[in-house]
Amino acid sequence: MDPYDLVVEAQRRQSQVDAVLDRFFSLAKSRASAVGPRYLTLWQTLERNSAGGKRFRPTMVMGAYEALGGTDHEAAAHVGAAFELLHTALIVHDDVIDRDFIRRGGVNVSGVYRDFAQTAGIPVPAAEHRGLSVAVIAGDLALFNAFRMIDKAGVGDEMRTRLHDIFDEAMFASAAGELLDVDFSQLKSMPTVDEVVDMERLKTAVYSFEAPVEAGAVLAGAPEEAVSALAMFGRNIGIAYQLVDDLLGVFGDEAATGKTTIGDLREGKRTALIAYASARPEWIEISRWLGLPDLTRAQAGVVRTALEDCGARQYAEDLAREYASRASAALDSPALPEAARVEFRPVIDSVLDRVR
Amino acid sequence: MDPYDLVVEAQRRQSQVDAVLDRFFSLAKSRASAVGPRYLTLWQTLERNSAGGKRFRPTMVMGAYEALGGTDHEAAAHVGAAFELLHTALIVHDDVIDRDFIRRGGVNVSGVYRDFAQTAGIPVPAAEHRGLSVAVIAGDLALFNAFRMIDKAGVGDEMRTRLHDIFDEAMFASAAGELLDVDFSQLKSMPTVDEVVDMERLKTAVYSFEAPVEAGAVLAGAPEEAVSALAMFGRNIGIAYQLVDDLLGVFGDEAATGKTTIGDLREGKRTALIAYASARPEWIEISRWLGLPDLTRAQAGVVRTALEDCGARQYAEDLAREYASRASAALDSPALPEAARVEFRPVIDSVLDRVR
Repeated sequence: MDPYDLVVEAQRRQSQVDAVLDRFFSLAKSRASAVGPRYLTLWQTLERNSAGGKRFRPTMVMGAYEALGGTDHEAAAHVGAAFELLHTALIVHDDVIDRDFIRRGGVNVSGVYRDFAQTAGIPVPAAEHRGLSVAVIAGDLALFNAFRMIDKAGVGDEMRTRLHDIFDEAMFASAAGELLDVDFSQLKSMPTVDEVVDMERLKTAVYSFEAPVEAGAVLAGAPEEAVSALAMFGRNIGIAYQLVDDLLGVFGDEAATGKTTIGDLREGKRTALIAYASARPEWIEISRWLGLPDLTRAQAGVVRTALEDCGARQYAEDLAREYASRASAALDSPALPEAARVEFRPVIDSVLDRVR
Repeated sequence: MDPYDLVVEAQRRQSQVDAVLDRFFSLAKSRASAVGPRYLTLWQTLERNSAGGKRFRPTMVMGAYEALGGTDHEAAAHVGAAFELLHTALIVHDDVIDRDFIRRGGVNVSGVYRDFAQTAGIPVPAAEHRGLSVAVIAGDLALFNAFRMIDKAGVGDEMRTRLHDIFDEAMFASAAGELLDVDFSQLKSMPTVDEVVDMERLKTAVYSFEAPVEAGAVLAGAPEEAVSALAMFGRNIGIAYQLVDDLLGVFGDEAATGKTTIGDLREGKRTALIAYASARPEWIEISRWLGLPDLTRAQAGVVRTALEDCGARQYAEDLAREYASRASAALDSPALPEAARVEFRPVIDSVLDRVR
């Protein structure tokens, strides 16, 4: 497929998912306004929070579905929308856990309600707690509606159960990963590289990559071997994606990624990079600076150099390439049709393009 | 039915629901231990949090189901267990919102994880945040599994959709009520009595009374008029229950209810009692004391006397009786069999017994 067609396809999928989510939010807002204006505002805020994304997970669902011969775009768009709502629920609650009031450069649900409260004259700590409280509620709404969205795909009993099982696995994994992440960020001991990779797989890769492609393949009625091969692709490319994301969070080009390269260092985020470095002599230098909330650009430069000197950067890049190549091998499975490779090779390439 | 038989029936229902929940938690714990010991601990903590309750909502489901002729106790126990998990999710998240670390005299999920963190040497504010963070995750697990529990009732497609719709309404209402409650407790303006009643209906009465009896009746295949009559009973007795609960929170016998009568006054909780009093001349006196975190027993006595003098106590008691009598009228509907009255009159009586 030539690049122009790929763009057209991506836009078609995105607009199909957007249409499903528009209908969902319209109905919810109309029900909410029957309860009262405050509830309507909450739903409007939740809708704005779920808009503006790249609809990445729905695209994975629909890509797998179509590559494996599925033709009921509406059904696939509903399953995709379910993953999008799950994503919304998880990031809204993740922001509560991280006490973040900003997401993608704008205020998130917690931020909107913190600001409402401050405007009403409530002092900062109470206003922040009010923001986080409402975000707990908003995330709950997105979460249970994600499960319900699968029901609306209009599939038979057995298929619905299989999709729910995949969705359940994704949520089960994500909660486990979030728990480990809370442990890593709040406890003192340093996790191993394997523990970090496992946490990132559970927290993000399963629900963002593995489960969406698996659900798409199952919905298309693909044979078991094709489903497994695609799930294996998703799992590995998901891990590679997270490893690269962590690298970009320290060594990226801020202008290109739009992502600060000092935030993760100030936060002391436990990544594969950091876990590897913690067993090297350079750690003495790195640990002096890592996690300082007011780390300067110059100090961050010192940390970056030490991470390169001790081989952590090279190690993490190699690890990302290793997972990407496992993803590639899974995609080469004879159980998968060529269409699956046409669909997902660009995903592997885009992950690898982001490594130095 | 004689009182002894009622007790036997109640125990049978409770043990059927407990068996469903035991199986659910056993399976979840076995899946969690495959992920790691920390995840197993979270599931064990969640299970302990959901145990020890009176299984009130499941009993409402099963009572309605059996009174309306249902005979598949397993199916009803699953729907009951779904409401119990929903209840667990809602109280775990409600405790996050209220920053409570104690529930029913023991530590809740937030409390367990706060204590773990403190034992690990983490200072109080961070340890508390860790407790609340893990409780956000735990509530999410209970919430999505509540929806899935309906699927396990083994009913047909159409019935499942109807049950999910009722469940959806309950969760939709509860989120709205929680939002209003957050507003009432954190904003300065005083809600009206109607607004308080509406909040309590949405937050608690729908998912604890109305939706459980409705689901039980639907599952039994009862005719539409019987379902509506029972739902109307549930809605009204649920509101009456909350009004009485608020009265007991101020005027109750601590030895009998096991509930402090000073906590709500110290918190400044917005109840029908308080909303009524706020428009009376005695409010000047009441508002001096209400919401003081260190309110003394003597000052609380002054507030109670003023609440009686201004007629707020009488008003709230009359209002509770009014809703109980609406519940009674709904139960007298010719659309309902005598068995429904035998089942639910004691619920009305127990609510009224708690009013002076």
